[in-house]
Amino acid sequence: MQCVGAKDALKPQRLKVDDAVEIRGTARADARAQRGFEIDVRDVRVLGRAANDLPFNSSTQERELDRVGIDTLLAHRPLTARHEKYADVFRVQATLLRAFREFLTRARFTEIVTSKIVSSGTEGGANLFALQYFERTAYLAQSPQFYKEHGVAAFERVFETGHVYRAEPHASPRHLTEYYSLDLEMGFIDGVDDVIQLEREVLTFMFEELERTHGDALRRSTGLGAARLPSLLRAPTWEFSECLARLGRPELVDDLDGDAERALCALAQAETGVPAVFVVGFPSTARPFYVMPRGTSGAAESFDLLFGGLEITTGGQRLHTRDALEASLRARAIDPTSFASHLRMFEVGMPPHGGLAIGLERLTAQVLGLANVRDATLYPRDRHRLSP
Amino acid sequence: MQCVGAKDALKPQRLKVDDAVEIRGTARADARAQRGFEIDVRDVRVLGRAANDLPFNSSTQERELDRVGIDTLLAHRPLTARHEKYADVFRVQATLLRAFREFLTRARFTEIVTSKIVSSGTEGGANLFALQYFERTAYLAQSPQFYKEHGVAAFERVFETGHVYRAEPHASPRHLTEYYSLDLEMGFIDGVDDVIQLEREVLTFMFEELERTHGDALRRSTGLGAARLPSLLRAPTWEFSECLARLGRPELVDDLDGDAERALCALAQAETGVPAVFVVGFPSTARPFYVMPRGTSGAAESFDLLFGGLEITTGGQRLHTRDALEASLRARAIDPTSFASHLRMFEVGMPPHGGLAIGLERLTAQVLGLANVRDATLYPRDRHRLSP
Repeated sequence: MQCVGAKDALKPQRLKVDDAVEIRGTARADARAQRGFEIDVRDVRVLGRAANDLPFNSSTQERELDRVGIDTLLAHRPLTARHEKYADVFRVQATLLRAFREFLTRARFTEIVTSKIVSSGTEGGANLFALQYFERTAYLAQSPQFYKEHGVAAFERVFETGHVYRAEPHASPRHLTEYYSLDLEMGFIDGVDDVIQLEREVLTFMFEELERTHGDALRRSTGLGAARLPSLLRAPTWEFSECLARLGRPELVDDLDGDAERALCALAQAETGVPAVFVVGFPSTARPFYVMPRGTSGAAESFDLLFGGLEITTGGQRLHTRDALEASLRARAIDPTSFASHLRMFEVGMPPHGGLAIGLERLTAQVLGLANVRDATLYPRDRHRLSP
Repeated sequence: MQCVGAKDALKPQRLKVDDAVEIRGTARADARAQRGFEIDVRDVRVLGRAANDLPFNSSTQERELDRVGIDTLLAHRPLTARHEKYADVFRVQATLLRAFREFLTRARFTEIVTSKIVSSGTEGGANLFALQYFERTAYLAQSPQFYKEHGVAAFERVFETGHVYRAEPHASPRHLTEYYSLDLEMGFIDGVDDVIQLEREVLTFMFEELERTHGDALRRSTGLGAARLPSLLRAPTWEFSECLARLGRPELVDDLDGDAERALCALAQAETGVPAVFVVGFPSTARPFYVMPRGTSGAAESFDLLFGGLEITTGGQRLHTRDALEASLRARAIDPTSFASHLRMFEVGMPPHGGLAIGLERLTAQVLGLANVRDATLYPRDRHRLSP
């Protein structure tokens, strides 16, 4: 709001950019003002003074700000977020989060809250953060995978939004050691396509909500929202083997790399108008033990969603009998007794089920065109970064 | 849904309680059936078999279940939650969570996601869980306190829902080492009463939502919802010193104990019809360094909300200038340089602000009349419990 006061009357206050102030005055209509009126200042009181030696401030030009560097921007998050461009990121993120929960709540999913301190990992022992838990060693959860499957046995459809932890030894622009995972799991599915279709619908709802509430922010961005967020209802499903053939990259064998993800999204954009593709039929051996195999083909009933050139989701159907899980563990040379309490839950009458996890920071980055996932994280954690 | 089939036709399936099944058949109106119709079974397929040796099952009587003991109930959470009484707890919890977020989003709060891995504690070094973070030691966050204050400098009003960690050496019925905290912080307040009034409103909205969606579950409970959840708009505010005088317990000096909390809620119930009271004016010395003092009286501008005999919230106004924070740290013999990056945020023009944190499990327990906070936690963590 533009406020107008006499220079001499305001001088004693020594006002400067970023001071937090209380202003009393009279509103006056003015067609030239951005909001249609201005305030004639009667009285100003400084509530919180800004320092004289800030590295940048609210009136720093955006192109100057880009030169400040991520360390300084992070060290002054509140100041950074007084610029629309940076505040938008976290407002958009909050809306994605709200819309994810809202869609699922309406679709009769129950929100669950599960522990992030666990006695062992869900996918073997790699990349776990160890914790001193009184006399014992505990670990930070890499995923709520087991808990959400148990949740299906209890509530049929569940979701959880929360932090997960990976002790990633690399500091790449797409990896964090702590990220926020949008997880869901649903029972009584007929197959992995039910999960894929649900993701099409939930993301489409999330994007519609973004368009409704943050259209301006999307238009200001350079991301997938800059034109208009696509309806993912038309996102295609492609076989992994077909992807390798089309890319002419048979050497990828069991997983895609960044180049392949970008190329596939470009192909999808050209053919369907949507820069996204569900890739199915990855080799089972490259997937965790709990993934349902597709018959005896060697492929898995799982999928990745690539969006704007980046994997933002892994999902799939899970094994739902204890026998099959034990066989899968043994085939991977893992002792089933180390998963005893988890396996016991498959004796309570577990329906066929599947689910997925969306990385919130990655999704935010793709929507807004941020090159580094750290730019979509208020306080990122990586190999080298533990503060602020 | 009641399904009816011929004994001989069903026998080969060897159906038993808790099997997950797919049933095809024909719906038939029947006034005697609980839902107004039954299904004549044409075909049954078992999707997931329940084991023969479960410690209890879905048809175990509730009074038998109470004798099973918490360890067995926890080890079989999915089975436990197939009983309405236990499922209710987590459905009610999910609704409290949804309504908290919904009220604040409408009141122009921005949801934030902040890191739970921190380089130091917010309130000194006590009761922190230490973590091996690559070559360094890190800690699990005891509270998002600092981050939400920084959030005020950025977004004016923020909230966060997430886990917090306390390495509590005791295993009491009211303490967990990991609990879910409903946090909010708001800027440009006139005083602590603004925060108290907001809590009255947000809790009243949450309770109205519970009544609307889970009235039956509340009526089945023995908690504060069993009659009807009170409107907290009428919850009184009492001075700490006045509380001690009324209780005749001057020896409490700087904090209440469980007996005092119960007695004060009973007094509030008798006088106002609401079993809740905001206690204000605790001695400053018993509160963290960031709490705003009430002039030079020695009292703090903070409050506890007691609800049904249990403290479920701590909140208050915070110091908002760097000078005042440094003086408060020094008065507590803490070196301000150990909070350097936090203190720097008070140089960006910080408005007067305050906030609160509600313990989700405690609130759920009070609403439903659960004596132990573990009963309101899907997977509780305490001194001795690290699984499931």
